[in-house]
Amino acid sequence: MDGCPPGLDLSPVDIQGELDRRRPGVGPGASPRKEEDRVEILSGVFEGKTTGIPISLLIPNRDPKSSDYDRLRDVFRPGHGDFTYQKKYGLRDHRGGGRASARETAARVAAGAIARKVIGEAGVEVFGYTLELGGIRAERFRREDIRMNALLCPDSRAAERMAERLEAIRAEGDSLGGVVEVRATGCPAGLGEPVFDKMDADLAKALMSIGSVKGVEIGAGFQIARMKGSESNDPLTPEGFRSNHAGGILAGITNGEEIVIRAACKPISSIGKEQETIDTHGNPRRISVGGRHDVCVIPRIIPVCEAMVCMVLADHLLRQDGVRRKA
Amino acid sequence: MDGCPPGLDLSPVDIQGELDRRRPGVGPGASPRKEEDRVEILSGVFEGKTTGIPISLLIPNRDPKSSDYDRLRDVFRPGHGDFTYQKKYGLRDHRGGGRASARETAARVAAGAIARKVIGEAGVEVFGYTLELGGIRAERFRREDIRMNALLCPDSRAAERMAERLEAIRAEGDSLGGVVEVRATGCPAGLGEPVFDKMDADLAKALMSIGSVKGVEIGAGFQIARMKGSESNDPLTPEGFRSNHAGGILAGITNGEEIVIRAACKPISSIGKEQETIDTHGNPRRISVGGRHDVCVIPRIIPVCEAMVCMVLADHLLRQDGVRRKA
Amino acid sequence: MDGCPPGLDLSPVDIQGELDRRRPGVGPGASPRKEEDRVEILSGVFEGKTTGIPISLLIPNRDPKSSDYDRLRDVFRPGHGDFTYQKKYGLRDHRGGGRASARETAARVAAGAIARKVIGEAGVEVFGYTLELGGIRAERFRREDIRMNALLCPDSRAAERMAERLEAIRAEGDSLGGVVEVRATGCPAGLGEPVFDKMDADLAKALMSIGSVKGVEIGAGFQIARMKGSESNDPLTPEGFRSNHAGGILAGITNGEEIVIRAACKPISSIGKEQETIDTHGNPRRISVGGRHDVCVIPRIIPVCEAMVCMVLADHLLRQDGVRRKA
Amino acid sequence: MDGCPPGLDLSPVDIQGELDRRRPGVGPGASPRKEEDRVEILSGVFEGKTTGIPISLLIPNRDPKSSDYDRLRDVFRPGHGDFTYQKKYGLRDHRGGGRASARETAARVAAGAIARKVIGEAGVEVFGYTLELGGIRAERFRREDIRMNALLCPDSRAAERMAERLEAIRAEGDSLGGVVEVRATGCPAGLGEPVFDKMDADLAKALMSIGSVKGVEIGAGFQIARMKGSESNDPLTPEGFRSNHAGGILAGITNGEEIVIRAACKPISSIGKEQETIDTHGNPRRISVGGRHDVCVIPRIIPVCEAMVCMVLADHLLRQDGVRRKA
Repeated sequence: MDGCPPGLDLSPVDIQGELDRRRPGVGPGASPRKEEDRVEILSGVFEGKTTGIPISLLIPNRDPKSSDYDRLRDVFRPGHGDFTYQKKYGLRDHRGGGRASARETAARVAAGAIARKVIGEAGVEVFGYTLELGGIRAERFRREDIRMNALLCPDSRAAERMAERLEAIRAEGDSLGGVVEVRATGCPAGLGEPVFDKMDADLAKALMSIGSVKGVEIGAGFQIARMKGSESNDPLTPEGFRSNHAGGILAGITNGEEIVIRAACKPISSIGKEQETIDTHGNPRRISVGGRHDVCVIPRIIPVCEAMVCMVLADHLLRQDGVRRKA
Repeated sequence: MDGCPPGLDLSPVDIQGELDRRRPGVGPGASPRKEEDRVEILSGVFEGKTTGIPISLLIPNRDPKSSDYDRLRDVFRPGHGDFTYQKKYGLRDHRGGGRASARETAARVAAGAIARKVIGEAGVEVFGYTLELGGIRAERFRREDIRMNALLCPDSRAAERMAERLEAIRAEGDSLGGVVEVRATGCPAGLGEPVFDKMDADLAKALMSIGSVKGVEIGAGFQIARMKGSESNDPLTPEGFRSNHAGGILAGITNGEEIVIRAACKPISSIGKEQETIDTHGNPRRISVGGRHDVCVIPRIIPVCEAMVCMVLADHLLRQDGVRRKA
Repeated sequence: MDGCPPGLDLSPVDIQGELDRRRPGVGPGASPRKEEDRVEILSGVFEGKTTGIPISLLIPNRDPKSSDYDRLRDVFRPGHGDFTYQKKYGLRDHRGGGRASARETAARVAAGAIARKVIGEAGVEVFGYTLELGGIRAERFRREDIRMNALLCPDSRAAERMAERLEAIRAEGDSLGGVVEVRATGCPAGLGEPVFDKMDADLAKALMSIGSVKGVEIGAGFQIARMKGSESNDPLTPEGFRSNHAGGILAGITNGEEIVIRAACKPISSIGKEQETIDTHGNPRRISVGGRHDVCVIPRIIPVCEAMVCMVLADHLLRQDGVRRKA
Repeated sequence: MDGCPPGLDLSPVDIQGELDRRRPGVGPGASPRKEEDRVEILSGVFEGKTTGIPISLLIPNRDPKSSDYDRLRDVFRPGHGDFTYQKKYGLRDHRGGGRASARETAARVAAGAIARKVIGEAGVEVFGYTLELGGIRAERFRREDIRMNALLCPDSRAAERMAERLEAIRAEGDSLGGVVEVRATGCPAGLGEPVFDKMDADLAKALMSIGSVKGVEIGAGFQIARMKGSESNDPLTPEGFRSNHAGGILAGITNGEEIVIRAACKPISSIGKEQETIDTHGNPRRISVGGRHDVCVIPRIIPVCEAMVCMVLADHLLRQDGVRRKA
């Protein structure tokens, strides 16, 4: 991580807290793997404060169990990057997927924890939650509910039905997808560059770079395509905007309202159900990718989405505010 | 434009053809303005061939009519970047919006025309069309229909209803949004970088950087969040993938299938209907932004979306294939 | 030019003044060509002030005389990029050299004029001069002398001998090189990034990217390699550094002293004297590149060197100080 | 390290060999510290071959002895980055210098070892040597001599005098500088970009980013400023260039000749002799930075210079040749 301002309090605990939220084994969709992500700060922090130089973190993988993957050596798992990595590179590391692995997101969460500190200095808070899972949608928003159910859903009753759906799908040996919503409050107006690095463009890239995400929308998103201009425009009043269909971003620049962004997550590709595929020689094969996998990326993906949003906001805040100078 | 391989045939006509598709005054949603975008190639082309050095293009604005905008000097148009530019920069060019102007997309289309040539050399074709407009969705896909209606809709019957809807909304002094779909065929497997510059992340950023776009999805997009893993995974067979929910991209890398991507476009913000807003002093105002505006960005935005996709694909093709060396 | 802060006074005159210094036809080493570089500001300035969006400038070439170059179509001029461009791209624009042309430096000077405004706001001043020409070195430094001789030499007596040397070499149909020194005063301590974008590394890249420059040194430069540590270290005192062998940069970061940097410029490659070369088919040829060429890049290259230094300093100042926010 | 092509043989031994050349305790200028840089490959290599994904290396510092540095906590060592880091960040890690530490170069050497493999595939070889040390210059070039003396000097007789000079200066508690020359053979013509990323500009930045380097020159370098054009131009013949004053680079692009580049290295700043300085409160102090320091960065800096050249060449080769695709 380069560009972190100096003089910020930072300890491994700050990062570990976020990593623990990403860890499996929590919540209804969890896998029985025991990844214990223990972060070490290798550089950039001195006597509990950032020094302004690049920060290096190391999160050793203490539970690789590569042997689990040996039978996958010459077969392409449907929905995974196995096929495209083989096509791109001519070879691949079949164990747990290398950079295509969900473990790669641990690094994002760790970096996001530092970014969260940076934006926190500017009064910006980022939080995410489950908006939809397996076709069940949160019907109301109670912020206090988010911490009260394992699925981090702002509608605890919907969360119960989601949990039941997850249990049923696990029994089927199948998996589910969902939609994560992330909000950023306290963000000042004026962040984002006019042409190449619009705030919404950077947020979209950041979320879409997460392996499971296949769609991103800001504010009213796809729904805005069905509105009239007189409905979609957010009227300005002396007290602020009367609505927030823009999701806090106008012409690529923050307008001071809450930033609201959603990511559509596909079902986990590794499922126990037998699927049709081919091997590296092009022969048809049947495969069941059972084992230690989650049945839904939600809620574990939520801190990853939050981390990406934190990083984009930190980057734009540092550009705009010269936080470094003042630190 | 930097990075264009040398030895490619390129004339202003190649670019002009694309620019003309973006021009207003064509189709039911068009404005009566007479922008005549005439492109000049300033550098990078010699005797009809690209030389490998950066290409500079100039598209003078022959129809600015800045006076039309004088009454907007101290008032923020709802849905526009007026407010955020003022907040970011402390001053703004109120005429036609500067970089926030839709005219800025002419540069994108011009650059995209060159990118289209680059990817054409590799056998890649990109085309876009209207999937949805004002809540009316194309119900079937006939590629030949696209050229047969002014709205570039692959379902000519739906296009008729869309056109009627546009006329009605114009009479109301209001505007409409819609959804554009872009496909890329012939794209080789293996394009896209594993972590930072995933193909889908770059495509999402490119489309979201267009002013009107509030959502982007790849393949099954938001719909995939409602599927099971056994449904969403695209089975591999010796003949290829059996479905294309992935939209041609797995783990950020192309898989050789058609790339399918959609952009949700908001209604045009400038409407004749009176709207609530404030002026630069914070006083409440009523505003009607009538004049020479389109009532929908579709179909004019389609060549812009295509251009962005062409640019991203050209960038990744050049990285991957060393086209430059061979040219 | 992206990243210029908003609210800065900027008119074409500001830029034109710098361009005129680069123009040929001034001073003893000048060519009789009549390039009249007239700059136009295409975007980014509104009512005399920068708006914060990218600034586009256009400098049309009003004196191309491409026909002069027709006889060079299939022969490689020694010392020019003809050979390497042909090798790289497989074709080349033989007229005036495309990007390899000295005219490309006009764009640098124009952009540098804007950067000079940016750093001026922070109290930084950049000026360059002729330290050495044709082996004759300035023996004393009188800043007031710089404006008093056409070669911009801080030692007017040395300038006289340099001018004589230039006249003699012109009569021979040959050319000369020299050394330019650039200083930046008023630069605050703390500019430069610790690893990848050290101030001295960025300055070296910027100057070395000028076509004629074959060497760059900071402070004591190559001479420091012959010192002892007890001589080369600049002692710190409560009043500041006692010497400036570091040239204002320690560990890649400015220390508040004057930045001093030198660029070694090769003799102009186009000479009237007959030279040995080959044509594009590999056959031996004799060539005399007479015509309208200067016999030394000095003093015309001085504003180009200054411009590069201004741009690097502006870039680092904007990173560090968040000037944008305050404007 | 991102961008390494897949399928390259790579083992820790390849990297360790280069690291060992950088290690102290070898040669006349060496310090008695026992840094044992042991590299571990964390990712990007599978079964002895690179996979195409980013490669992470870790080199733990097994000999920090931070306590040695405690007395330096509040005093600025002359010639070091202590003062500028304090000015930039408002705080600093006084132990061994953080990013300003010479240890940071271990990472460069490790990355360079991988780059050396990449360019080796293309037939490019990079080697460096001591051209000058303490004012003593190699008077002849015998490549076989380089391996025959601890100072890696191509003139073994000069090397003897250099070694004597080093011993004398060590006795004085002082230090020396010198000049390193690096050559690259087998480099194809056509590498380097025409405007922004010229080969010589990138090489200059790379070498100048090494802490001790205060000057960089290509080919004839500063000497070319004293030549006439008829002398400095390298004549082309059907058999190749007749001379190499250009140092293998014309107009920013390689011409197929040997690349020759020199770096001026300052004397080591940490010396036993007492020096004048100030503390962090601005009070005058006397300081002797004795201890475990080398008295010259040569020869240890040679593999660092080589590594930087390897990285720049690898970067340009990969851009140009699409090596990735073919691997």
